[in-house]
Order: sequence, then structure tokens, then C-alpha cells
Amino acid sequence: MISAKRSMHINLFLMNTGHHEASWRHPATDPRRITDLNYYRELGRIAERGKLDSLFLADTLVLPPTVEHKVLHGLEPFTLLSAIAAVTDKIGLIGTASTTFNDPFHIARKFASLDWISAGRAGWNIVTTASESAAYNFTDAALPPHDERYRKASEFVEVVKALWDSWEDDALVADKESGLYADMAKIHPLDHKGEHFAVRGPLNMPRSPQGHPLLVQAGSSEDGKSFAAMVAEAVFTAQPTFESGQAFYADIKSRMKPFGRSPDELCILPGFFPIIGDTLAEAQDKQRELDELTIVAYGLKRLSTLFKVDLTDCPLDEPVPLHLLPRQEEINGNRGRFELVEGMARKEKLTLRQLIMRTAGSRGHASLTGTPLQIADELERWFLGRAADGFNLMPSHMPDGLSDFVDKVIPELQNRGLFRTEYTGNTLREHYGFSRPAGKRKLEAHT
Amino acid sequence: MISAKRSMHINLFLMNTGHHEASWRHPATDPRRITDLNYYRELGRIAERGKLDSLFLADTLVLPPTVEHKVLHGLEPFTLLSAIAAVTDKIGLIGTASTTFNDPFHIARKFASLDWISAGRAGWNIVTTASESAAYNFTDAALPPHDERYRKASEFVEVVKALWDSWEDDALVADKESGLYADMAKIHPLDHKGEHFAVRGPLNMPRSPQGHPLLVQAGSSEDGKSFAAMVAEAVFTAQPTFESGQAFYADIKSRMKPFGRSPDELCILPGFFPIIGDTLAEAQDKQRELDELTIVAYGLKRLSTLFKVDLTDCPLDEPVPLHLLPRQEEINGNRGRFELVEGMARKEKLTLRQLIMRTAGSRGHASLTGTPLQIADELERWFLGRAADGFNLMPSHMPDGLSDFVDKVIPELQNRGLFRTEYTGNTLREHYGFSRPAGKRKLEAHT
Repeated sequence: MISAKRSMHINLFLMNTGHHEASWRHPATDPRRITDLNYYRELGRIAERGKLDSLFLADTLVLPPTVEHKVLHGLEPFTLLSAIAAVTDKIGLIGTASTTFNDPFHIARKFASLDWISAGRAGWNIVTTASESAAYNFTDAALPPHDERYRKASEFVEVVKALWDSWEDDALVADKESGLYADMAKIHPLDHKGEHFAVRGPLNMPRSPQGHPLLVQAGSSEDGKSFAAMVAEAVFTAQPTFESGQAFYADIKSRMKPFGRSPDELCILPGFFPIIGDTLAEAQDKQRELDELTIVAYGLKRLSTLFKVDLTDCPLDEPVPLHLLPRQEEINGNRGRFELVEGMARKEKLTLRQLIMRTAGSRGHASLTGTPLQIADELERWFLGRAADGFNLMPSHMPDGLSDFVDKVIPELQNRGLFRTEYTGNTLREHYGFSRPAGKRKLEAHT
Repeated sequence: MISAKRSMHINLFLMNTGHHEASWRHPATDPRRITDLNYYRELGRIAERGKLDSLFLADTLVLPPTVEHKVLHGLEPFTLLSAIAAVTDKIGLIGTASTTFNDPFHIARKFASLDWISAGRAGWNIVTTASESAAYNFTDAALPPHDERYRKASEFVEVVKALWDSWEDDALVADKESGLYADMAKIHPLDHKGEHFAVRGPLNMPRSPQGHPLLVQAGSSEDGKSFAAMVAEAVFTAQPTFESGQAFYADIKSRMKPFGRSPDELCILPGFFPIIGDTLAEAQDKQRELDELTIVAYGLKRLSTLFKVDLTDCPLDEPVPLHLLPRQEEINGNRGRFELVEGMARKEKLTLRQLIMRTAGSRGHASLTGTPLQIADELERWFLGRAADGFNLMPSHMPDGLSDFVDKVIPELQNRGLFRTEYTGNTLREHYGFSRPAGKRKLEAHT
């Protein structure tokens, strides 16, 4: 890859009132709007004003125990993204769907449908669901083990891709004159029977505008990284420092070759949590305003959930009681996040209160509080230093934190030639510089 | 119920290019538009111009074997309805979802999300999936038997309603000052463990604008009618004649009392397939134009699928070979439709070709080819004669067949005081004259 030809990619990580956990208490946000489509319409339009590549909805299949003091995740991704598709023009739409608690036929079909509705802007963030309590909303069996979930995910994605390819691109004829609507010789069943799934196919929908909606992945465990190297075209990741970002970047890209893939077939997008002020002092004031709204009781619950141990009675101003924590191998949930936050506490010898505050905004992602120039410098450093191909933008509170970034940081990135000044394509794949995957073509049908 | 207070309800049955099976070949339709949101935006706006109560998407979870000569059903209901929600203001949005091949948590959540996105316009057409081949897109086991599917459906609906009610209406506090977001005492798990489902709950979303999205049902078998009487608030049904409509109407309404329900808690909406001309001759010309585009080979496949017997080599101009058909009790699919079409062939001694043509447009639903006055007369007769509380409008081809109805028949119904001239409410429930179901309220929480 030649540096000059690389172009930075920016995804907006939509999350209720913002990524700072106290954002819903900020005077400029309205937590009642998170179930209101007009809110997302406004955010989508601001993001398009900034020419961002895409927006992304994370998801959870269970009510978090922290909802007493923390705003909800929001609406269901397929329904919300389809609605946003209808009120935006260009921005890509990435939705999270679990491979542990879904059927491949439904998922293939919903993403293909979203891809048609949005004229080629759909992407799938593939997750295996890390929450043990989510399992009980679907079954009375416990969450399958980590490696088992990833095996199931591999088969799930294989089936979904095969369903997306079950119609050749020219299978739809729609010839009014002859009365031939679809050429059955170009529509292929799968007859898949695997370890986890039996799916006959074909899909009941023509191949979608992108062929395959973009495949995105966010697991940072060993299983997750291998899976990303195998199937993902974009990876969301939490990297607290430039150095950890570089290491992760090199690690993932080096894992791709065994799967016959080139490093430039995958974009690495670390989360980035900026707080932007026209002066450093103003930015710091903004951060202080948010941090002071943080509820310590909530932070304790959040860390207790992550660490799988009840910390509520631990002294706040003493070091994090690391000896109480389970070993990483015992975690059958979000293992990557556990490692990251535990490592931060260990290396920096943080008190419990400090760890709560340090993770209240960025949740362990890279963050910077500063001026637009300082933020742009940091993004440029990560991008040119091969710690990132772009960023998963996590505004502290919305819409203000987003419009600050779009109106102040984006122009600076554009001035430096790092970021597009206009959309040059129409599909999510085009925004990320990827081609449309070739479909099936039965040679005998064309002789 | 007092006649003068009844108001007719009209639902638009959206179906690709229209309900006549040859509609996609009509010069005024474009079969490529069925995957284009702009098409549905246009149809939604025409329907709102006519002040229709709702629009409805049927669904199928398998590629029909008839797709060689017949346009596809269309896009996936949740994604498409959410997109339509974003580009319409008032019309209700009814989507089909199967209780045989879904998880209650996903379905409860998607409808609640659609209800938020549309500000109270969501409805669920509950189906058990009649297609035996659909099963093989989800499992290698055969479709469960008819009565078993309905038992599962009852439990499924019970769980979904409990999830919708798992948040009390005032559980969301969102008090910035105190930092209390949700009152946990007003959010209730289900801990449901039944014959088919284990669902802990609660839902990860506040109670939606309608409390419960509208519950709709369309099965006309004995199991289906009992189920409708128990849970449905609107029923779609295929009734070929006024008399059969009256009998069905009386039958369903009489089944409600044992469930503690009043007859006016359910609207019966027979399908109605109009072909409208300014003169009778013009209407008949329109019908002829469509009928002449019918592909007999397709019609044979369609009837073979319905009757579960291969009719492709039977002589077209001799009576339908009824002796080849299985008995109705042997049908583990769409038993109601089987009975209707078989009965039509038997009673009217139709030839195979005649049965193909007779069911090419209306598929056994009531139909009338005539002037706007004649159509309005027929709708009025059904409505006042207690064969219908309203209609499931099935335009022959779209958008023209729909705009003909909206611009020519609706004004006539309005002139007669049978149909609204403006929307008087904002939610789907309000359009159908139903109140918002009361939510849970723990008395002890308020003492």
C-alpha cells in the first residue's frame, strides 16, 4: 500500500445520548429523544454534512442491570437503520446482529432488504453476544462457551454469504413480453447441513446492490482477532494508546495472509472519544462538566459486571482490588474488554474511583480532550503511523459532540488531504474503497 | 353496537406490483421497483391521501416455486415498514411475522421499536407459516403440524404481550437532576418457562406508544378462527361472496365471548379486489387487459402448490379433477385457502382454466369490476350487512389501481358518511377505534 493513496475512514458510533456515560444528564442532551426517529434523522444529516463513511448501531439483547442510572442503548438496529436509510442519502448503515441468537436465513434476508432499501449502504457488525444474561431471553440454556460461539459464528457467516449469492446477478429477468420473471437456472439452493445450521435456501430476494453488505467485526479476543482476519472488512476496536493501536493493527493485518487475504482488504477503526473546545481550557471545561455528572454507584455496577465480581463495597480511593478478579481465561463474555480495563488498572495502579472516571467516557477507547488542531494531529498520527485506517467516532454527547467534530475537526482533516471533501461513491463499499464481490456464475448457463 | 356509530376501516394490502398475478406484466407497472423504497414511499403517500387506516405487508419465508413467472413478494417486512414509517405520517403499518420460525424476544422488540419509530403506528399480523418448504430454511425438521403450530402461536403471543408490558408506563424517569434513569421497581422480568419458550425478560425498551402494537390475524381454519377470537383485534379473511362474508363475520364474533371479549373489540376485514373504470365497459376492459396477461403455466403451478397435487398434465378445458385432491384434513399448510378454492371449483363446476382465471386476480377474495359507484355500493352492502367492518384493499396493479380507488371510490364513501374525511387520531389503534391497553401497575409501588 502507498501512503499517499490511503484515505481515512470515519464511522459514527451512534449511542443514545452519547458515549460519556453521564451524557444523558448533560444540559444539552435529551434522553427522551433516543426513541424518536427525528433525533436519528438529525444525527444522520450532521454525519452526512461531515461526509462520514458510515454510522453504526451497537446492540445488546438484554436489559443492562445498570439501567437505573444509565440511559438505554436505544432501539432495535434493523428497524432503526431502515428508518434512517429512508431519511439519509449517502451514509453507510452498519447494524449489529448476533450469530448466537439468530437464524442465518432471517439475518441474510434482513441485511439484503436493508441493502435494497438504502440502495447499497448496509453493513453487518457480526457479534457472538458476550452477555451471559442475554441467553436467558432466548433459552433456558447458558450462553455457549467462547470458542463454541466463534465456531458457530463462522458457520453462520458462511451460510449468510451463500444466501446472498444464491441468486446470480442476472437471475432477475422481469421480461414482461415473454412472461419470464426469474431465470431458475441462475437461482441456486444451498442445501447447507452443518454442525449448527440446516438451511436449504435460496434466499427469497434478488442479489442486493452491494452483493454482500459490508462485514464488520469488533471482537478483540484471540478468537475474535482470528475471526476478523478471516471474514471482516472493517474492525472496530478499543485501543487506549497509540502503541497498543499499532500492535493491534500489525497483529490483525498479519493474520490475514493465511486466509488468502491482502492487508488492504480490511480497515481497522479504533474507537476515538474526543472532547473538543476552541481552546484547550474550553475542552477541559467540557470534560469536567461531563465527568462531574458521573454516578459512582453506576460505575461500580458497570465494573462489577465487566469483572464478574461485586465491587460495590470496595473502598473507592484504594487501588482496584485486582486479586478479587477472575482470571481472563475464566471470562466467557467480553474477554477483550476485560483484558483492556484490567490491564489499565494494573499498569497505572489506579484506584477504583480513578478507574471509574477513566472509563466513564471512553470506556477504554482512545480519547483526547483538546482543540480541533490537537484532535486532527492525533488522528493523523494514528493514521500515518499505522495504528488505524480510520476511526470509530464516539462523540461524548449528541448532537453537540458530533457537530463539533463535523464542523471543526473534519475541515482540518480535509485541509490536510486526509479525508474526503465530497462523497465519491454511493454505496458503503465504495466509501470504504472496496469492490463489489463477484457473484456466482454458472459457466454452463452461458455457453 | 349502533350502526350509525360504526365507521368503515380500510387497510391497503401492499403486494409487489399488485394483486393480479399478471400485474407485473401490465404496461403501467414496473416490477423492478418492488425493491425500491421510492415505490413504497409513493404508495404510502397515495394511501394517506385516501386517509386509509393502515397498510399491510404479507410475508413468506421461502422462495415460491412459481417465481419463474410471478413477481416476488418483495422485501422483508420489518426493514421495509420501518423505512415506510420514516416517509409517512399517519398511516398504520402492519407487518407479518411467523410464530413458528422466530423468537418472541426478537419479535416483541422489533414491533416495539417499529412502534417507537412510527410514533404508534405498528401492527403485527400473526402467522404460523403454512409453507412446508419454509421450514427447511430454518431446520432440517418438517413443518410442525397445524394444531401444534397454533399451540405454539398462543404461547408466543402471550410471551410477546408480557414483554411489551414488562415496563410500566412510567418506569422511564430520566431525571437528570437525581440521576435516576429508570425505576427498577416498575420493570418486571417474566421468568417465562412454557412448553415452547423460556424467556426471562424484561424487554430492553420502554413500553411503546401504543402499549401493544395492534394484533392482526388471517388464518381461516378452525384453529385460526379460534385463535383470532382469542387474540386478534383485526382479521384479514378471504370471502368470495357476501353470504360467506356474513357467515364468517357472525362465526368469528360469536367465538369471542368465551374469551371474555366483546364483538366490537375486533374488526373483520375481508379482502376486496376492485377493478375500477369510469364506465362498466372501461372497467371490464381493464380486467380483460390483466386477465389476458395471465400465464396458464403459472396458474397450474399455483393451484398444484395449493392442492398438493401435480395438475400440470391435466386438460385445461375439463372440470377440475377434484378426485385427485387430498382431503382437507390432510392439508398441513394453508387449510383455509384450500377449502375456499376447492369449494369454488366444486360448487361452480369450473374447468381448470376457469379456476385459474377466477383466482388469478382476487385469489378467492371478493372482487368487483365496475364503476366507483358500483364499488362503493358493494362495500356499503358488506359493511351495513355485517359481512365486514371494513376491507383489506387489494389493488389489481399499482400504483394505478390504488390511486383509482383513493381518488374515485374513497370520495364516494366519504360522501355517504361511511369513511373518514380526515385522520382523527395519530396511532394505528386510534384509526381502528381501539384504546391503548392498560399497562402493569404494581399497587404496592404507589402506596
